[in-house]
Amino acid sequence: MRLTRYTDYAMRVLLYAGTQDDDRLSPISEISRAYGISQNHLMKVVNDLVNAGYLESARGRFGGIRLARPAAEINVGAVVRHTEEGFDLVDCGSCVIAPACGLTGALAEALAAFLKVLDGYSLADLLAKRADFAALFGMPEISKS
Amino acid sequence: MRLTRYTDYAMRVLLYAGTQDDDRLSPISEISRAYGISQNHLMKVVNDLVNAGYLESARGRFGGIRLARPAAEINVGAVVRHTEEGFDLVDCGSCVIAPACGLTGALAEALAAFLKVLDGYSLADLLAKRADFAALFGMPEISKS
Repeated sequence: MRLTRYTDYAMRVLLYAGTQDDDRLSPISEISRAYGISQNHLMKVVNDLVNAGYLESARGRFGGIRLARPAAEINVGAVVRHTEEGFDLVDCGSCVIAPACGLTGALAEALAAFLKVLDGYSLADLLAKRADFAALFGMPEISKS
Repeated sequence: MRLTRYTDYAMRVLLYAGTQDDDRLSPISEISRAYGISQNHLMKVVNDLVNAGYLESARGRFGGIRLARPAAEINVGAVVRHTEEGFDLVDCGSCVIAPACGLTGALAEALAAFLKVLDGYSLADLLAKRADFAALFGMPEISKS
């Protein structure tokens, strides 16, 4: 079982932005280098997160992205619901027994329990070891406590 | 988010076997036709389920597979834990922030909640609409109540 790469990348971008000082704009190229992910892959995710109100972006030479609201106000469950498409845990569409199968309901219940746990976490919770992120990203320092 | 096709097929085979009379052996070819899945894809799954003690198999002209224990004694959570490999919800192995990232713990907790729900279901629970399965599979009748 795995989340889509899209969700994975969305969370990485938000985590990166969450490690920066409030007003700093992170260039996409910087995030791309930090994770070893191509800028093309990141752009679609970033645009989506801007449109969804999670990120702010500025164009130009000193442009980049930053969180549009405090990390404590970004709910992980909400982000995952936004970025995952459909949550089709199994391919019922091609399955002859779909109308009778009890697995569908069991999986829906299990998925609800999964998301309920994530609803209990904010981006700030995931950044509890914020100082360690700086070292891992090779940043000189992070001033926000 | 989705389960592996391997788990999907394993559940389909168990559901099929669970709709049969206790002593009837279902040929793999019959299950293959019922779901429109190639026999090659099913064979690996079936062998695994035999080895894990969920299915019994018999070779030969009248051979096939059947449940090795009552459907009420086959736990869905246990099957999914067996057939899913690793449960790597995101690709932390390639991610620079893995040592500090709080997402790992949040996802592990969410996954535990997901599996706990499935632990509450048996194969028999998923077959509650057993008579409907017969119609969907195009079987003439299913005698077990």
